[in-house]
Amino acid sequence: MSNRIASLLGIKYPIIAGGMVWCSGWKLASAVSNAGGLGLIGSGSMSPEVLKEHIQKCKRATNNPFGVNVPLIHHNSVQIMDVIMEEKIPVVFTSAGSPMIWTKKLHEKGIKVIHVIANTKFAVKCEEAGVDAIVAEGFEAGGHNGKEETTTMVLIPQICKATGLPLIAAGGIATGKGMLAAFALGAEGIQMGTRFALSKESSASKEFKEICINLKDGDTMLSLKKITPTRLIKNEFYKKIEEAENRGVNKDGLLEILGSGRSKRGIFDGDIKEGELEIGQISSFINEIQSSKEIIDGIIVEYNDRLNTLKTI
Amino acid sequence: MSNRIASLLGIKYPIIAGGMVWCSGWKLASAVSNAGGLGLIGSGSMSPEVLKEHIQKCKRATNNPFGVNVPLIHHNSVQIMDVIMEEKIPVVFTSAGSPMIWTKKLHEKGIKVIHVIANTKFAVKCEEAGVDAIVAEGFEAGGHNGKEETTTMVLIPQICKATGLPLIAAGGIATGKGMLAAFALGAEGIQMGTRFALSKESSASKEFKEICINLKDGDTMLSLKKITPTRLIKNEFYKKIEEAENRGVNKDGLLEILGSGRSKRGIFDGDIKEGELEIGQISSFINEIQSSKEIIDGIIVEYNDRLNTLKTI
Repeated sequence: MSNRIASLLGIKYPIIAGGMVWCSGWKLASAVSNAGGLGLIGSGSMSPEVLKEHIQKCKRATNNPFGVNVPLIHHNSVQIMDVIMEEKIPVVFTSAGSPMIWTKKLHEKGIKVIHVIANTKFAVKCEEAGVDAIVAEGFEAGGHNGKEETTTMVLIPQICKATGLPLIAAGGIATGKGMLAAFALGAEGIQMGTRFALSKESSASKEFKEICINLKDGDTMLSLKKITPTRLIKNEFYKKIEEAENRGVNKDGLLEILGSGRSKRGIFDGDIKEGELEIGQISSFINEIQSSKEIIDGIIVEYNDRLNTLKTI
Repeated sequence: MSNRIASLLGIKYPIIAGGMVWCSGWKLASAVSNAGGLGLIGSGSMSPEVLKEHIQKCKRATNNPFGVNVPLIHHNSVQIMDVIMEEKIPVVFTSAGSPMIWTKKLHEKGIKVIHVIANTKFAVKCEEAGVDAIVAEGFEAGGHNGKEETTTMVLIPQICKATGLPLIAAGGIATGKGMLAAFALGAEGIQMGTRFALSKESSASKEFKEICINLKDGDTMLSLKKITPTRLIKNEFYKKIEEAENRGVNKDGLLEILGSGRSKRGIFDGDIKEGELEIGQISSFINEIQSSKEIIDGIIVEYNDRLNTLKTI
């Protein structure tokens, strides 16, 4: 398969595991990389010291390339980047900020940069900043999300039109058919968060995984739009926010209800009532917890099977 | 091409033009059917008398099958159905209501029934009601929309899992690549609203078409969620609603701001400031007004070209 994403990253299959808070430690990242995809360590929920430990463990667990995701709003992003440069990580996925800030510096250290976006404006900025590739993430994705609410089906062709950079599609993709749909639209790789958050190697709690594989359609919703749009399961905490939003509570009032540490409480500690349960819409399609290798192998088989059944008109 | 949707409807290409208020009269319906797709007359903005006139004109303009879309909340739906049965329309697309209400009666008259849904629950109801096929419409679609906010990328595989009925995908599809993506996900047909609303034969006003082909991503938004979720362009009217929603105005207060006749005012009369401008997210990808024949021919070429470039992994 001639594919710019697989070549750029030096991986067998152009499948990336999103670097998710409280899910993406060294276990998940190394399992995905060992299975032929690219695993990412999610630094968003780590201190620089914890990240260093995860990187070193990941290096011992795989000989294949892996990366780190860095949300640029991380209060420790400078120290996080220092660890990444020291450890000579081959690729960094930056998100939640401008691609201008770190791209040049990382390139000087020989580190590839892939930036996560949700609109055309940032796709153009990515090209100006000289990033190596883009992840375009649609409205259906879990966790933090774009203000435009553009879905994957609409976003991918828009970004392909706006830039010639190699493109990884994210949001609502969890299967081989989904991967094929993304490729039909112009992507050359997929990033899956939800599917890998619900894998054996994800560090999310048993309680969180259990509730996620039992969701029905409509059980997640984009919430907290006055703060940062975030896709959440409609649990007790969500309902408090919804009720406050419906009666016009402002950003400060919502921040007070939110408090701090809610995503750890929900995803990692397993408080399924009062935690912030970040997961994508496609969770309602996922009913079992598989290993990362089973997930990736299954996707490749399904992609090929489905492609072989499609006929020209 | 062996395809259940094309066979069911007796059409060359499994492409349906959505039956849109103020856009889908006999001109658009006959142009789409003449080009090998299935045109629908949108009865949602018609009296029974006006519908009868459009049906009769459409019959004179094409020898190919065409259908009528009936929103079941239409205050005249009984009289609308009477016209359809008298005129022996081959297929009815029902929406905004239960598929149980009309399916049996229409089948007795030899009329096929396709029901529009946005969630799994209604897909199961469709199977129980014995409809011939389903349109599953995602969050990115224009106009009235499901409460679950499930996107096309997530909805199509869910509905395929829930029912074996032939499935038409809608929402965010405007190109051959989009059609291929929908087919990769399991659909056997596509319904396009936005693309045909912005065709030469659409009866929407020049002003409405003009604003739509100049939109950028993020310029439409799902609004009026306390009444009926509706995707609108963010014009002056939208901003009034948004401002009221942000300060917690309830359903009655919003209905007062909405008033009546807003969609006619926006789409048909061309009041782009104060009208309700219903259009899908994919409008930001459409930059020209083509004929229905150019649209359909272009989609088939692009579908085949794209399919031929995809390789197994």
